[in-house]
Amino acid sequence: MALLAVGSVALDSLETPFGQRDEVLGGSACYFSAAASFFGPTRVVAVVGEDFPQAHLDFLASRGVDLAGVVRKPGRTFRWKGRYEFDLNTAHTLDTQLNVFADFKPDLPAAYRDSEYVFLGNIDPELQRAVLDQVRAPRLVACDTMNFWITSKRESLEKTLRRVDLLFVNDAEARQLSGEHSIVKAAARILAMGPRALVIKRGEYGALYFSGREVFAASAYPVPDVFDPTGAGDSFAGGFMGYLARARDESPLAMRRAVVVGSVLASFAVEQFSLDRLRTLTADEIRGRYAEARQLAHFDDLEPDVLEARR
Amino acid sequence: MALLAVGSVALDSLETPFGQRDEVLGGSACYFSAAASFFGPTRVVAVVGEDFPQAHLDFLASRGVDLAGVVRKPGRTFRWKGRYEFDLNTAHTLDTQLNVFADFKPDLPAAYRDSEYVFLGNIDPELQRAVLDQVRAPRLVACDTMNFWITSKRESLEKTLRRVDLLFVNDAEARQLSGEHSIVKAAARILAMGPRALVIKRGEYGALYFSGREVFAASAYPVPDVFDPTGAGDSFAGGFMGYLARARDESPLAMRRAVVVGSVLASFAVEQFSLDRLRTLTADEIRGRYAEARQLAHFDDLEPDVLEARR
Repeated sequence: MALLAVGSVALDSLETPFGQRDEVLGGSACYFSAAASFFGPTRVVAVVGEDFPQAHLDFLASRGVDLAGVVRKPGRTFRWKGRYEFDLNTAHTLDTQLNVFADFKPDLPAAYRDSEYVFLGNIDPELQRAVLDQVRAPRLVACDTMNFWITSKRESLEKTLRRVDLLFVNDAEARQLSGEHSIVKAAARILAMGPRALVIKRGEYGALYFSGREVFAASAYPVPDVFDPTGAGDSFAGGFMGYLARARDESPLAMRRAVVVGSVLASFAVEQFSLDRLRTLTADEIRGRYAEARQLAHFDDLEPDVLEARR
Repeated sequence: MALLAVGSVALDSLETPFGQRDEVLGGSACYFSAAASFFGPTRVVAVVGEDFPQAHLDFLASRGVDLAGVVRKPGRTFRWKGRYEFDLNTAHTLDTQLNVFADFKPDLPAAYRDSEYVFLGNIDPELQRAVLDQVRAPRLVACDTMNFWITSKRESLEKTLRRVDLLFVNDAEARQLSGEHSIVKAAARILAMGPRALVIKRGEYGALYFSGREVFAASAYPVPDVFDPTGAGDSFAGGFMGYLARARDESPLAMRRAVVVGSVLASFAVEQFSLDRLRTLTADEIRGRYAEARQLAHFDDLEPDVLEARR
């Protein structure tokens, strides 16, 4: 399926109302590729330090992830430390240590250059373009970004946006990027910046998809216990892109299915710390929750005579 | 259809980022009955003061609302003054003048006592029960409440909840009432308090419906310009109950349609100040937006072979 992802490989330290974990596996490229792995392999471009546990790479490899583009450099691995409040919606960054990530220059193995589906994880928009420059003829390019790049590298981000087909952002990022509070207007502005499709992730509420005149709203699967929201967005993107690359179908209905698959993968990812839930997840569970999502959203036509005719 | 509603009739003064209005028509009974009027008449129990403009009552009467239970008392009408921030999600109450509402003792006209569908708007839970005591054999009783009653009259509220079939609350109220942060757990706790069904309204995100093992998630119609969120919840309840009372169907699918109808009515109500959008709204517009809601939420089955078999 030739799906390529660039992003971070990290050691995360997390505090949530349900407990804490130190230096567990994290990073956008890991969540993305593990989620996508249920549909096929992902080629990963990333950097780790000398201290990065081989067991984590072995886990990803066991999921069929192609690690030829993961380079090990002298120094320490990228570390992120965050804390979530009771409502679990907002991550407070306590500490970021870029380490080997500071000098990350994505260099694609020759075998990656024919990738058709490309996911540019949340990294410097300049590096996102550097990856794109090395891919011969991508069929669909998606990217993620965050408030930091919107504020500090807007021009560079806009350059990247002109070259991508699909953008993943959350509500707040969509509003910040567009300068519009109304999500409908924000979507229209962002689509005018380049991408032909836009996914707005809304956490526990679900996701909106905009493309041309298409609008699709997927409700999130109501998870009884959210343990750790870290990586939900990347798991969403991994499910979404993994599905698309496997289905090789970009029809409006396929894009809708991709949104729901993304939402399903994110709903699993948050049920345990780090990537732990993705380790035990099975194809049958994904199929089952997709079916539940259909049932969750199902309703039928209004009876034609139920509205007062005279009004 | 014999739908009865008790609630407030108010003169609202509003400040939103889009402008302000002084002493415009408001109150839960007005939004509710105007929204329900597209499906049939509502019998309203409420109180107004000597200063309440006859034109507002004439408007409701023109919509087929039964005002036999609206009494005019010496004194001034209930007034509420509120302000919305840029995000329009939270109302800040600037001033509340109960006026004639302070001594409101709901007294049902004899002709109202056979009402089958009852909506107990957001008033003192004791008064909600006083209304129920006067209804002979209600078929379906729904109620609304708010943080104020949850905090200050919890025991009384719990008494009311044991007598209602359906509760409408928002996210925050569901969490406060149940003491659970997880919406799924909150719903289970609230259903154990009495109601056999629960609607959790989530503003711009939509609504969740819980009953037994049934869970339904409706996404809100994405409104490009929200002008005034006042009354959205009551318009939702009015559409929901108006539809149910007209359809006389409480099957799981009918309840789902009711949630979507409620969501559609709320989406119109917020497009203009006060009840203004409900004044010009037509049955065709409601039908049209319901059809759009179906399109908005539509997706189909996952291809059976798209997941990796070995994983």
